[in-house]
Amino acid sequence: MSNKLKIIPLGGLGEVGKNMMAYEIDNQILVVDAGLMFPEADMIGVDYIIPDFEYLYDKSHKVAGIIITHGHEDHIGAIQHVLSRIPAPVFGTPLTLGLVEVKLARNGMASKVDLRPIQAGDCLQIGPFKVDFFHVCHSIPDAVGLGITTKAGLVVHTGDYKFDHTPVDNWPTDYAKLAELSTRGVDLLMSDSTNSERPGWTPSERVIGPAFDEAIKNAPGRVIIATFASLISRMQQVADAAIKHHRKLVFVGTSMVDNAKMARKLGYLIVPDDTLVPIDAALNLPPSQVVLMCTGSQGEPSSIIGRLSAGTNRQFDLLPNDTIILSSHPIPGNEEAVSKTINRMLRVGSNVIYDSIAPVHVSGHASQEEQKLMINLVKPNYFMPIHGELRQLRRHAALAKEIGIPQDKIIIIENGQIVELEDGKVSLGERIPGGYVIVEGSAIGEADPDVMKEREQLARSGIFVVNLSIDKYSNRLLDDPEIITRGFVSADDAETLVPAVRKRVIDVIHGGGMSVQKDIVDVVRTFIFNETKRRPMVFVTITKA
Amino acid sequence: MSNKLKIIPLGGLGEVGKNMMAYEIDNQILVVDAGLMFPEADMIGVDYIIPDFEYLYDKSHKVAGIIITHGHEDHIGAIQHVLSRIPAPVFGTPLTLGLVEVKLARNGMASKVDLRPIQAGDCLQIGPFKVDFFHVCHSIPDAVGLGITTKAGLVVHTGDYKFDHTPVDNWPTDYAKLAELSTRGVDLLMSDSTNSERPGWTPSERVIGPAFDEAIKNAPGRVIIATFASLISRMQQVADAAIKHHRKLVFVGTSMVDNAKMARKLGYLIVPDDTLVPIDAALNLPPSQVVLMCTGSQGEPSSIIGRLSAGTNRQFDLLPNDTIILSSHPIPGNEEAVSKTINRMLRVGSNVIYDSIAPVHVSGHASQEEQKLMINLVKPNYFMPIHGELRQLRRHAALAKEIGIPQDKIIIIENGQIVELEDGKVSLGERIPGGYVIVEGSAIGEADPDVMKEREQLARSGIFVVNLSIDKYSNRLLDDPEIITRGFVSADDAETLVPAVRKRVIDVIHGGGMSVQKDIVDVVRTFIFNETKRRPMVFVTITKA
Repeated sequence: MSNKLKIIPLGGLGEVGKNMMAYEIDNQILVVDAGLMFPEADMIGVDYIIPDFEYLYDKSHKVAGIIITHGHEDHIGAIQHVLSRIPAPVFGTPLTLGLVEVKLARNGMASKVDLRPIQAGDCLQIGPFKVDFFHVCHSIPDAVGLGITTKAGLVVHTGDYKFDHTPVDNWPTDYAKLAELSTRGVDLLMSDSTNSERPGWTPSERVIGPAFDEAIKNAPGRVIIATFASLISRMQQVADAAIKHHRKLVFVGTSMVDNAKMARKLGYLIVPDDTLVPIDAALNLPPSQVVLMCTGSQGEPSSIIGRLSAGTNRQFDLLPNDTIILSSHPIPGNEEAVSKTINRMLRVGSNVIYDSIAPVHVSGHASQEEQKLMINLVKPNYFMPIHGELRQLRRHAALAKEIGIPQDKIIIIENGQIVELEDGKVSLGERIPGGYVIVEGSAIGEADPDVMKEREQLARSGIFVVNLSIDKYSNRLLDDPEIITRGFVSADDAETLVPAVRKRVIDVIHGGGMSVQKDIVDVVRTFIFNETKRRPMVFVTITKA
Repeated sequence: MSNKLKIIPLGGLGEVGKNMMAYEIDNQILVVDAGLMFPEADMIGVDYIIPDFEYLYDKSHKVAGIIITHGHEDHIGAIQHVLSRIPAPVFGTPLTLGLVEVKLARNGMASKVDLRPIQAGDCLQIGPFKVDFFHVCHSIPDAVGLGITTKAGLVVHTGDYKFDHTPVDNWPTDYAKLAELSTRGVDLLMSDSTNSERPGWTPSERVIGPAFDEAIKNAPGRVIIATFASLISRMQQVADAAIKHHRKLVFVGTSMVDNAKMARKLGYLIVPDDTLVPIDAALNLPPSQVVLMCTGSQGEPSSIIGRLSAGTNRQFDLLPNDTIILSSHPIPGNEEAVSKTINRMLRVGSNVIYDSIAPVHVSGHASQEEQKLMINLVKPNYFMPIHGELRQLRRHAALAKEIGIPQDKIIIIENGQIVELEDGKVSLGERIPGGYVIVEGSAIGEADPDVMKEREQLARSGIFVVNLSIDKYSNRLLDDPEIITRGFVSADDAETLVPAVRKRVIDVIHGGGMSVQKDIVDVVRTFIFNETKRRPMVFVTITKA
């Protein structure tokens, strides 16, 4: 048997090891996380993205277990896809498994899955992997990091974390366990790089409480708080502030309602029954007695906040006296959508509070000083930044070097680059694809660059279809050319352009020079470009009869 | 004659009065700025956007002059469009007019235009408008704000500004003139709101010098600095650092080269001849003796940095020893593109320095403390925040209220809302469209929401065209249906899907039930959705022969 541990960042969009990783030794595999990503701006038409875990397809019988570090979408969102290929037991804390269960239930898979609750502090043998689960603070309760011991040595995988001294659930990151792991000798630390460009220390979740308190105290009407559906601790803070100011609380939207219900059942969210009211009841209360909590803090058009800002929500509309709190920070790429949403709500006359006005959101990830603390607590021999794009990994590596990790013990990799640990030495192994797979309707597959390019071209200038019916003997037109155009010019402009193109095509065919489809395409393309300086996709179909 | 001054924020995307404003009294008009905007994410296929100034179309003979406050694109970029409708004299400082001239020359209009240089400090009578030009600091030299005196009173229009105590050109904002205007009694202050969400004071341009110095000193190979082509003061800072470290400087790209040439000619950019080399010469020098300055700091794919990062630049490629400095901050909406560009360059092995690593960029706009200083210096009776979206205007208004401007003397408007000043009283006037106009190829016109929607739909799932030839007597197919699809499924998937659709169409027509085009569209659409859960645009063309 080999003493070699393979560490495999399976795939994803750009953040290394963020959504899914695997550990392999003695022909057995431990999977960590199974998350999804949202498409980038140029991935037109894509619903969401999951890691490419093809590496595991023919090894599914070797997978001893799947550990989920916490319940955010980017760590659990691909679980139904992973489990349908790899029917292994899933390990996680009760809240994490609760969120996994809600998701599986929506996909009709809840009953078929072997969920095994663990607690932070547990030490579990999963095949050849001895796993120490240690508690970490994050923007969701019950998150864990992992100490993974095998014959090859001890590896620490932080997961998403911050060092919050005053977390909402009063449960700080487990310094003692980290220190204890360090006394055993950590061969390799893999640590969350998300905020490696942020100096200092990320503020405590606790600072949000007074901001909510102040906003709700001063609100003349309803308070509508938007955040992610999985931010259970944010729900607790909103509930506490609602109770303090004698308001009723409503969760709006399926994912919010389902997650709140599950979190209350498991004891992660404490709200008295008489504080919670359903939405219809809330809409009949005086506005000053109501707090609504919903999704849409990223300006998603189909979310409740998106619909409210556009005036297209079914159940209720925004009012000038409403106070809306966006309790999140725009995810890169969403800045424009969030800004538009804020402007639209201000236009109604509502008061909008967001993170540059009051501390209604803090990050769930460690900043530079915390990242250094993690390295100094764990004292690893090797350091590998994970959970970040190359720019964040480089910054994290620079911090590690600053505090004394030698350059040759720092490893920066991209998804798909296998890293090997053997006899206390870390080296680079095989390279596997490590990309991602797109989910589009019922299709799951590789992004086809040709298809994406065609979509971009279609989007840029639209289409122009010419349908010709030609006498097969005389090569003369049997009918006027039929022309269809979409996404190209306005109906008004089409009224002059379309007859002009039609006339040009007729002239050319009558002239007798054109018998080949391609020639007509060229004529139409050139004519349109000369007239408009634009290049729609041109199609010519010819029926010979 | 009326004593009423109309203040008209003509149009734009969302920032009030940013790109173009007009002042009207006694049947005469003064235009301030003529800038362009870049399209938002959902304006697919649009090249750029200009203000809707239809209000001026039938009043062009009344326009006494066009003042350009400074030479950035969002203030000069629409000048050729405006001048082709309104042939009025253009007033600006020498650098501003130099940049206007470069732009007009590119559009073949340089000789036809009446350009009238002014200097900060000048007081000019332009029709019924007495204009005091006062110097302001900004991220370009030679920017001015305006004191506009008419029979109706005195209005101060700041333009883009910051209060920099140590600007690169040693010319601070003109405090004395602002104070002097205040002693005359300012009826209305209109002030730049861009950074109203930023607490404190914007750092001086001067802090960039040491950051450049340090980066160039430590660079083992070439240094490539990317910024906007109009940032003349940034050019000076780069030139100074290049000289200090005995490197040659190259400007790369037409707009950089043209602007640098003009700025040197006018004395705004001081670089000795022997420091500047052309690009071919630079590429033959040892890398450690070269600094290149180019565009592309916003990750634009067609810019030099964009092409370098993608490996598609013609003249030269990135090298692992290169140091790239992105001397700008991502404009909202560009964050994702900038981040991708950084990652791509890091992947080559180059060193990339951007604003979260070192102070290689500062904003050109006043932060909250400066905005308050402006209000306290000018002591206006009325205050109207301009140059910002609603969210920034609201914040700016809140600052004004904090320092004592009464709520009923603060006016927040959107583009197209005319404001009137008469006998020292400000009130709302008529509402004009105040929107924007898109420029697409040779077309200039309103954005057609139907066309935009079609483009989005085309982009989301592509197209599916079915061409049928049918015997007009028997209604039977004369030939196999021809099928064209683009942007929908990969070539592999099309191989199974297209024959299935074809078979379905043949079955339906042979079944005899379908004679109407719309029915066949429905059948194809339903079949495709059931198979793929997606909705491409479906077109069916039928030729009967």
